[in-house]
Amino acid sequence: MSEVNAEEVNARFEELSILESEFEEVEIELIRKSNSLNAPLWKKRAEIIAKIPHFWTLVFEQAPPELDNFIQPSDSKVFVDCLQTFEVSRFEIEDPKGSPRSVSIKFGFGDNEYFTDKEIEKKFWFRKSKDWVGLVSEPVKIHWKKGKDLTGGLTDAAYELAQARKKLTKASNGDAKSKKDSSLPEYNALAKKIEESTEASLSFFAWFGFVSSYRWISAEESEQAEKEDTANLEKLKRGEKLDEDADDDDDEVDYQETEVFPQGDEIATLLSEDLWPSAIKYYKHSHEADDEELSDIDVSDVDDMDEDDSDDEIDIRGLVGKGRKSSGSPPPKKQRKA
Amino acid sequence: MSEVNAEEVNARFEELSILESEFEEVEIELIRKSNSLNAPLWKKRAEIIAKIPHFWTLVFEQAPPELDNFIQPSDSKVFVDCLQTFEVSRFEIEDPKGSPRSVSIKFGFGDNEYFTDKEIEKKFWFRKSKDWVGLVSEPVKIHWKKGKDLTGGLTDAAYELAQARKKLTKASNGDAKSKKDSSLPEYNALAKKIEESTEASLSFFAWFGFVSSYRWISAEESEQAEKEDTANLEKLKRGEKLDEDADDDDDEVDYQETEVFPQGDEIATLLSEDLWPSAIKYYKHSHEADDEELSDIDVSDVDDMDEDDSDDEIDIRGLVGKGRKSSGSPPPKKQRKA
Repeated sequence: MSEVNAEEVNARFEELSILESEFEEVEIELIRKSNSLNAPLWKKRAEIIAKIPHFWTLVFEQAPPELDNFIQPSDSKVFVDCLQTFEVSRFEIEDPKGSPRSVSIKFGFGDNEYFTDKEIEKKFWFRKSKDWVGLVSEPVKIHWKKGKDLTGGLTDAAYELAQARKKLTKASNGDAKSKKDSSLPEYNALAKKIEESTEASLSFFAWFGFVSSYRWISAEESEQAEKEDTANLEKLKRGEKLDEDADDDDDEVDYQETEVFPQGDEIATLLSEDLWPSAIKYYKHSHEADDEELSDIDVSDVDDMDEDDSDDEIDIRGLVGKGRKSSGSPPPKKQRKA
Repeated sequence: MSEVNAEEVNARFEELSILESEFEEVEIELIRKSNSLNAPLWKKRAEIIAKIPHFWTLVFEQAPPELDNFIQPSDSKVFVDCLQTFEVSRFEIEDPKGSPRSVSIKFGFGDNEYFTDKEIEKKFWFRKSKDWVGLVSEPVKIHWKKGKDLTGGLTDAAYELAQARKKLTKASNGDAKSKKDSSLPEYNALAKKIEESTEASLSFFAWFGFVSSYRWISAEESEQAEKEDTANLEKLKRGEKLDEDADDDDDEVDYQETEVFPQGDEIATLLSEDLWPSAIKYYKHSHEADDEELSDIDVSDVDDMDEDDSDDEIDIRGLVGKGRKSSGSPPPKKQRKA
């Protein structure tokens, strides 16, 4: 290097921006490749799992601390009582306008005392604004039974506000800039509920009300931001200067007044990129835990969730533990994450 | 499911073990694919970075907390003073007996007051024993200048013990079981040093002395364990029962008496799977940090590390910050990890 000056460092910075977009292309290709290679294995896994009672309950019980910290004892009880299936899919992977980073997370439940839903699905769309990129979602309605809402009305209030916001956007002909949603009664209702709730005991189920750790971004806004990014990148490649950015008013802070679960996108990432791919590992851990220490959830006194053999009271931990021992299958291993 | 019994759960457990090995094959294929797609981009990045002063210092400054917690202020000062290059490579990726998970992490340094080494490389081998799998390493000798050893002799003591262990293994004709390394004077010297050192102020450079979070595993032992795993898997696929495992005496606990950096493998993973692929992102964060808050390292009063332009005193944070602003390149984005 002959001399260091701002012009040169600046030029390097632009080269790095172009390179970053090439890394992103590779990353996208790898997600697609991973999805197509793993898809048949996930299918096979689901078939085996369907024959293992409480598989996903045991996996959630072994969730890493980053995730487990968000699961209250009362949430665990729901999983023990009635969680039957769990599924992650990249629902936009074939969609040229969508992103392979968008993800759907689906829970299947048996009959239970908490809600009437048999399936609760939460979708996350990978979207960008002028100065943010990440996962956004829409609040999902959970049909809680009377007096059984573990979130104290948070999911309902988040859902109501989202509906009201949609109407408002429609009324203003999609002109997002003109909408002032903080004047909505649903806004104040939710903001008040959040203020009153204590984060320490927030139910995991409040996660279904999550919108964004930034703010909601529509498909249209995201597409526009994508176009601008592409245009800027082309300019950089041709060696042209970009227009100065005007400082945008950032409404992120305000938006968080009505976010019921600020780390909702982190949870989505943990579920889809750790719990889902490593489910067998966590399931095996539950046997190690059985050998070495008492589980923090005692599932032996829980009603049998399988309808066909309701006569037998089953200690599922004892059973699978014994299964492993009598099989003499290879001892569980500490696996490094890929 | 008609009925739940131990035999059935047991059979499912074996099916899952077979499936797990198929997932592992896919994972290995994806690591190879990732490496071949990214290699040309890493090369291009290195060429750009070579022209950016303090690039890696700024990246390390923005390291995520999981990593940053292990970097003491005195370690940061070394990086600011003389870190010039940083390189991660999968050195066994073409080796049929090796693993694409094995990783080499190489630091390049300019002339400095701390040590005479121009390059310090730490290799991690992905190996397995009968009941563990993960990264192991050998202590690396750092040639500290007099009175400048940031680890208080830990890297030297770890290196000496490793050398003594090698001699011992050779003397016992490679019969690992017969070696009793706790009788070595080097063993006691290191165990004592570790007992005396305070973990809270442990230098990052002690990481170069890391061996294993379990215990050392030789290439031969790993190969043997791999063979047994493969044989067991074949048995399972043919529907045969496996032999009962004898309960092994586990020498992991003892071994940790002489481990200078118990989380060394986690650091290797953070460096190779986060800092290395996301370096541009962290570099850009250093500009955001420059805009928004004061850095915890003040590099403006540090001697210019570039030898060719020693006349100019350079405030590198100011410079690159300005570079970004005057370029009008797209604003930095919060990027979700892949």
